[in-house]
Amino acid sequence: MNITIWNENCHEQQNPKAANIYPEGIHGQLAAVLIESGYTDVKTATLDEPEHGLSKDVLDSTDVLLWWGHIAHDEVDDEVVDRVAERVLKGMGLIVLHSGHHSKIFRKLMGTTCNLKWREADEKERLWVIDPSHPICSGIGQYIELEREEMYGEHFDIPEPDRLLFVSWFEGGEVFRSGCTYQRGRGKIFYFRPGHETYPSYYHPDIQKVIENGVSWAAPVHTAWQQYGNVEPLETILEKE
Amino acid sequence: MNITIWNENCHEQQNPKAANIYPEGIHGQLAAVLIESGYTDVKTATLDEPEHGLSKDVLDSTDVLLWWGHIAHDEVDDEVVDRVAERVLKGMGLIVLHSGHHSKIFRKLMGTTCNLKWREADEKERLWVIDPSHPICSGIGQYIELEREEMYGEHFDIPEPDRLLFVSWFEGGEVFRSGCTYQRGRGKIFYFRPGHETYPSYYHPDIQKVIENGVSWAAPVHTAWQQYGNVEPLETILEKE
Amino acid sequence: MNITIWNENCHEQQNPKAANIYPEGIHGQLAAVLIESGYTDVKTATLDEPEHGLSKDVLDSTDVLLWWGHIAHDEVDDEVVDRVAERVLKGMGLIVLHSGHHSKIFRKLMGTTCNLKWREADEKERLWVIDPSHPICSGIGQYIELEREEMYGEHFDIPEPDRLLFVSWFEGGEVFRSGCTYQRGRGKIFYFRPGHETYPSYYHPDIQKVIENGVSWAAPVHTAWQQYGNVEPLETILEKE
Amino acid sequence: MNITIWNENCHEQQNPKAANIYPEGIHGQLAAVLIESGYTDVKTATLDEPEHGLSKDVLDSTDVLLWWGHIAHDEVDDEVVDRVAERVLKGMGLIVLHSGHHSKIFRKLMGTTCNLKWREADEKERLWVIDPSHPICSGIGQYIELEREEMYGEHFDIPEPDRLLFVSWFEGGEVFRSGCTYQRGRGKIFYFRPGHETYPSYYHPDIQKVIENGVSWAAPVHTAWQQYGNVEPLETILEKE
Repeated sequence: MNITIWNENCHEQQNPKAANIYPEGIHGQLAAVLIESGYTDVKTATLDEPEHGLSKDVLDSTDVLLWWGHIAHDEVDDEVVDRVAERVLKGMGLIVLHSGHHSKIFRKLMGTTCNLKWREADEKERLWVIDPSHPICSGIGQYIELEREEMYGEHFDIPEPDRLLFVSWFEGGEVFRSGCTYQRGRGKIFYFRPGHETYPSYYHPDIQKVIENGVSWAAPVHTAWQQYGNVEPLETILEKE
Repeated sequence: MNITIWNENCHEQQNPKAANIYPEGIHGQLAAVLIESGYTDVKTATLDEPEHGLSKDVLDSTDVLLWWGHIAHDEVDDEVVDRVAERVLKGMGLIVLHSGHHSKIFRKLMGTTCNLKWREADEKERLWVIDPSHPICSGIGQYIELEREEMYGEHFDIPEPDRLLFVSWFEGGEVFRSGCTYQRGRGKIFYFRPGHETYPSYYHPDIQKVIENGVSWAAPVHTAWQQYGNVEPLETILEKE
Repeated sequence: MNITIWNENCHEQQNPKAANIYPEGIHGQLAAVLIESGYTDVKTATLDEPEHGLSKDVLDSTDVLLWWGHIAHDEVDDEVVDRVAERVLKGMGLIVLHSGHHSKIFRKLMGTTCNLKWREADEKERLWVIDPSHPICSGIGQYIELEREEMYGEHFDIPEPDRLLFVSWFEGGEVFRSGCTYQRGRGKIFYFRPGHETYPSYYHPDIQKVIENGVSWAAPVHTAWQQYGNVEPLETILEKE
Repeated sequence: MNITIWNENCHEQQNPKAANIYPEGIHGQLAAVLIESGYTDVKTATLDEPEHGLSKDVLDSTDVLLWWGHIAHDEVDDEVVDRVAERVLKGMGLIVLHSGHHSKIFRKLMGTTCNLKWREADEKERLWVIDPSHPICSGIGQYIELEREEMYGEHFDIPEPDRLLFVSWFEGGEVFRSGCTYQRGRGKIFYFRPGHETYPSYYHPDIQKVIENGVSWAAPVHTAWQQYGNVEPLETILEKE
C-alpha cells in the first residue's frame, strides 16, 4: 500500500501557533501517525514542490492520497487537479481532511459547492458514531471528544453521502456531517472533518485511528475490466435469432 | 386525502402535566393542526377503541396514518399491527412521531430494534435542516428551535434512511437523526422526533408545518399494477426463437 | 413553471433519417409534448443561438431545463456550462436525455466519466419499472416497450443514484440503469435513457408521460435560506456559560 | 471465521433431478466450495435437525450464516427466526440465496413482502456487474453468464438496497436486481439470486467466487459498544452551566 499525504503547508510557515503544534507540518504529523500504525510506504507532497509533488509517476504509484488544504486552494494548478481526479476515478482512494472540503479536487468530484458554516471560538466538538459497524469506525467508542476545535455547521452542500459515519455536536449549537463516504468511478472517497491548524487534533488517538481506518478502507479493490464505447453484438445470444 | 391520527392516549389520562398541555389529547391537537392547515378528512383513533380504532374499513380508506405511542406499545394487538403494515406496503403513508420509534409497527417495518438514548432534562433542542429542498422542509428556515424537550441521542438503531432531513442538537451534548424518510413497498414513511407529552412541541408553528408537509409528501402515488408470482413467457420475445 | 428545452439540433440538419422523424427538431417534438400535456411556458434553445440560447436571463427564469446533445458536446461553451451548473445548484431542475449522459453539464454535476457501452442494432428495449410508487413512474405500467432503439449497456460510470427508477432490458443481452435521480445543491436531476435521433421514441406515449412526470418532479421546491461562511456565536446558547 | 450454511434440504430428498445435481445437498456443495476456498470452520444445518440446527449456541458462535430455503419456509419455527434476526442485528453476517428471498428471516429483516416474478423456462441469465469495485465483485469480469436458470423478474418488492451489485438479464425479457447489500443493526446482509435446485449454478466458478467474497464482506466488524435507554447528563458539558 503506497500512501501519499498532500498538504498545502502554508499555515505552518506563516502562523507560529500552527508551526508550534505541527513543527513537521500537518503532513509530517500525519505521516508519523501512519508509519507508527504500521504502513511502510508513506510519502508526503506539498504545494511548493514542482507539480505540487503530484507528478503522474507519483499518482500512478499511489494507492491512497490524503489531502489537507485551506488558504491556498486557488493556487493548486487545474492540471494537477484533473490528474488527481482521473486517478481517483481509476481506483485511487482519497481522504479529504477538514478545510479540504473547499479544495478544487473535492468540489470537482462532488459536483456541488461544498459550502458550510464555520466559526473559530474554541468550542468543544463531539463526533458521534452513526454507523458503528462500518470498518472506518472500528475501535472507536460511542463518540470522539475534542476539547477545542473550529466549528463547522450545517447546511453542508454536498451530495447525500453513500454512508454517514459521524455527526458532530458543537458547543455553540451546531451539528455537522463530519464523516462521509462516497464512491466515484472506481475510487473510494472519505471526508473527515477534524483538523484545524491551530488545534492538536491529529495527536488525538481516536482521530488517528479513524484516519488509519480510512486509509485501509479506501485502498483500491481489484476491479473487473470494463468495456466502454461501441460494442459488438453478443453472438451467443443474437446468433440464435 | 383521508387522514387518520392514532394516539395511545394514555399520558393524557394519567399525567396532569400532559393533560394540561393537551386537553384534547395529542391526537386532538394534531387533528386541529391538520384541519387548520386545510385538510378536511381528518379522523382520530385511540388504543381504547375496538380494534384500537383501526378496523379494516378505517385503514382501507386512510391515505396517511399518523402514529403516537409510548408506554402502551405492548398493548397494541399484533393483528392490528399486521393490518397496518400490510396497508403501508400497499401504499398508505405513515408518519411516526417521537416515542413511536419503539412502536411495534415502526420496528416491524424497519426490521431493527430502533433503540436510542433518551433523557428528560428540559434541554434545548435545535433541529437543523439537512436537506433544504426536500418538500418536507419547505417553509422551514435553517433550523427549528424548541426551548425544552426530551433528549434523544445516537446511536439510533435504524436502517440508513432513504433521505435524512433533520439532525437535532441537544444542549446536553447529543445529536440525533430527527427526520428520516423510508419507502417500504408502495408506502412512504416519515419518522419525526419531537413531541414528548410534557412539552408543547405540537403547538410550535414550525413543527406543525413539518407535519403538514409530511402528510402531503406521504400521500399515495398512483402506482402501476405489478404482477408477482409465476408469469408466462413473454411471447413477443420468445416466439422469435 | 417555465420550461426550457435545449437541443444541439445537429443530427436533424445533417441526417435525413433524423430530420424525417423530427422535422421540428427533437426540441420541437419535446416542446409539443409538454405543451400538449398542459404546460404553457415552454421555450427551446439550440447550440447555434448566441450563448447557445442559454443567457443568464433565460436561465434565471427557467424552472426546469431539458438537455439533449450528442455529437457536439465539445462545442458547448464552458462558460455556459458553468452557468447552467450554478443554476442547478441554486434550484433549477435538470432533465438529461439519452446521449446527454456524455454532456459537459452532466459530467460536471456527476463528477465521473459517465461512460457506458452502446450499439446501434435496432434492438428491442424494455424499460422495467423498479420504483413503482415514485412520482416519475406514475401512470406507467410494469414496463415500457420500445420496438427498436440504440442499446446502452452497463457498466454505466455514474455515482450511485439517489433513486433508481427504470432498468432497461435489451434484446442483445445487456441491461442499463435507464432512469436515475440525483439531488445536487438545491437542484433535482433526472437522467432518462431513451431517445436516439433515428428512432421515434419521443412519440411513444409512455416515454412522453415519464418526461412530463420528470418535469413536474424536478420543479424547484421553496427552499429555506441557508447561511454559509463565517457565522456569529449563537448567543441564546453561549450567553449562558 | 465460523460459517454456518443452512439449507431446508427438501428438494434434494424429493426431486431426483435436484438430488442428482446436489448429491450432498445444496448445503454440502456450498460447504465444499467454502472449504476449498480456504475457510476451515464451516458447518451445515438443516430443517430436520432439532431447532433446525440453529440452537443458541450454534448461532452465538457463527460469524456468517448462509440461507437456502424454498418450499418449506412456513415450516421454519418462528422462535428460530427471531433468534437468527437477533443475532444478525448484533453483528452476524447473513447471505440469503435465491428463493430465500421469501424466507421468514429475510422478510422480517426487510419489512416488505419480497415478492417477485418467476418462471422456469431454461432461460439464459447474465448477471451484469453494476458496482465493479465493491469487494463482493472482486475477481469477476463484466458479467457472469449462466446457460440456464430459473427467471426472477422485477418488480422485486424490497427496500432500496444500500448497494446494488448485480442486475440480471434474462432471455425471456426480464431484468432483476440480483445482488443487493443491506446493513441492519450491526449485521451485514447480502442477497444473491442464482441457485435454483435443478440447475448446477453452485458449480459455476464465478458464482462460487461471489459467495466467497460475500462471506468475507459480511464478517462482523469490531463494533463500538453503544449505550441505549436512559442516560445520565454528560457532566463535562452540563456542569459548566
